[in-house]
Amino acid sequence: MNRIVLGVQYDGAPWQGWQTQPSGKTVQDRLEAALEKFTQGAIGTTCAGRTDSGVHALEQVVHFDTALSRETFSWVRGLNAFLPPSIAVRWAHELPAGSSSTGEDQFHARFSATARTYHYLLYNNPVRSPLLEGKAGWVFRPLELELMRQAAAHLVGTHDFSAFRAVECQAKSPVRTMEEIRIERRGDLIVFSLRANAFLHHMVRNIVGSLIYAGSASKPPEWLAELLVQRDRGRAAPTFMPDGLYLAQVAYDPKWQLPQQTAALLPWL
Amino acid sequence: MNRIVLGVQYDGAPWQGWQTQPSGKTVQDRLEAALEKFTQGAIGTTCAGRTDSGVHALEQVVHFDTALSRETFSWVRGLNAFLPPSIAVRWAHELPAGSSSTGEDQFHARFSATARTYHYLLYNNPVRSPLLEGKAGWVFRPLELELMRQAAAHLVGTHDFSAFRAVECQAKSPVRTMEEIRIERRGDLIVFSLRANAFLHHMVRNIVGSLIYAGSASKPPEWLAELLVQRDRGRAAPTFMPDGLYLAQVAYDPKWQLPQQTAALLPWL
Repeated sequence: MNRIVLGVQYDGAPWQGWQTQPSGKTVQDRLEAALEKFTQGAIGTTCAGRTDSGVHALEQVVHFDTALSRETFSWVRGLNAFLPPSIAVRWAHELPAGSSSTGEDQFHARFSATARTYHYLLYNNPVRSPLLEGKAGWVFRPLELELMRQAAAHLVGTHDFSAFRAVECQAKSPVRTMEEIRIERRGDLIVFSLRANAFLHHMVRNIVGSLIYAGSASKPPEWLAELLVQRDRGRAAPTFMPDGLYLAQVAYDPKWQLPQQTAALLPWL
Repeated sequence: MNRIVLGVQYDGAPWQGWQTQPSGKTVQDRLEAALEKFTQGAIGTTCAGRTDSGVHALEQVVHFDTALSRETFSWVRGLNAFLPPSIAVRWAHELPAGSSSTGEDQFHARFSATARTYHYLLYNNPVRSPLLEGKAGWVFRPLELELMRQAAAHLVGTHDFSAFRAVECQAKSPVRTMEEIRIERRGDLIVFSLRANAFLHHMVRNIVGSLIYAGSASKPPEWLAELLVQRDRGRAAPTFMPDGLYLAQVAYDPKWQLPQQTAALLPWL
């Protein structure tokens, strides 16, 4: 058996998230349908991070096992021929499927990941932009970058992120290590980049919503520190819209030699 | 009467171009429907440059006459409330409708324009990008910028552009003045910016198609000069896909004091 690893990019707007649903209208359903057409057999896939409805991926990482052996470019071209325009396999990499199914020598898209980076694109302009519809969040009030950076600094480190955790979140622990939050302005776009060992359900959108409160001076930067301590989802800002959220990069040990592409600040630059 | 001037941005993908059609599925139809709802009366509009099906506008300029008087922000907010997400009025400006209907003192979105700038966004990567679907053209072969710049230099100046003119083009003369062609790379995107006094039908897409032949070394840069002289549409490259084409800016005499926004190289930066 071979374990094939894929880098998958998608526009999340037309899909009900990553994870398979009875409706079949998810990225996983469409990817597995393409795999079935290409390989003439049913193949289950595992991803690094399950994205929600409307959330995009610059580079989702996915693995599956198969007895087939193909050139890696053949997986890319073959699968893309069966995928809709809003989903594409960007690269493929073959690893031997280890004999011990739980061993460290076995690559696993989710369990081998050491960190995830998400970007949130926010259009900050008095008028909405049709060209960014579904691709960026929108805030018409002017936002202060410096206030948001001060607020974000409180979140870096290992914390209990219960204040930013969806009630449906199934993670065993609300503790995560936020390694970095960068906030940059590019013209009328504000780009938030968050890197953590892992994220809770809705965590990025909940954090961005609260940072926007700080950026518009509705709340002081220290409010983010209070939210962390209070651990009460009800006190933080509402979950912000999914439109601007991108799973940008998943980090792995270099030993796997995945042909990952760098996490650009903007998805296509 | 007041002459109201609007800056209109749209994603062209869902629409059959600017100009009104019996189907009603055009940007002009939707804008005039919004005007009718907002003003409770039928109002005809005139634009600076009629864009084709699938072509976007960063800032189309449109005018119409009305006896109504409103604050300019009221036109923006009121019309946007009745427009779909893929179309938005970005600004409005009120000018007095002149007494002489043909005089120079009368602003006209099309006839007062002194130049137009179009951008073409081209994604140059071996694999297509779902996040740029409908927003950029795609060429998987590597393109040489320097070859395309040399080729483009032959087009600058006043020329007979018959080689790049669609057969359906209704312009009286095929002569246009190309003021500037810039070609820049931003990551995997190549951005073409063309500024001319006016453009023939399909002229940008036909030029970009031929520049791509030069960029992939299928043709030498001098081929563009030969095409100009031959004036034969059949010898130039086929019309390139509309996906990456943006009407970026229309230039007018500063005396009109239009609140135009600068033509950024990328639509949202």
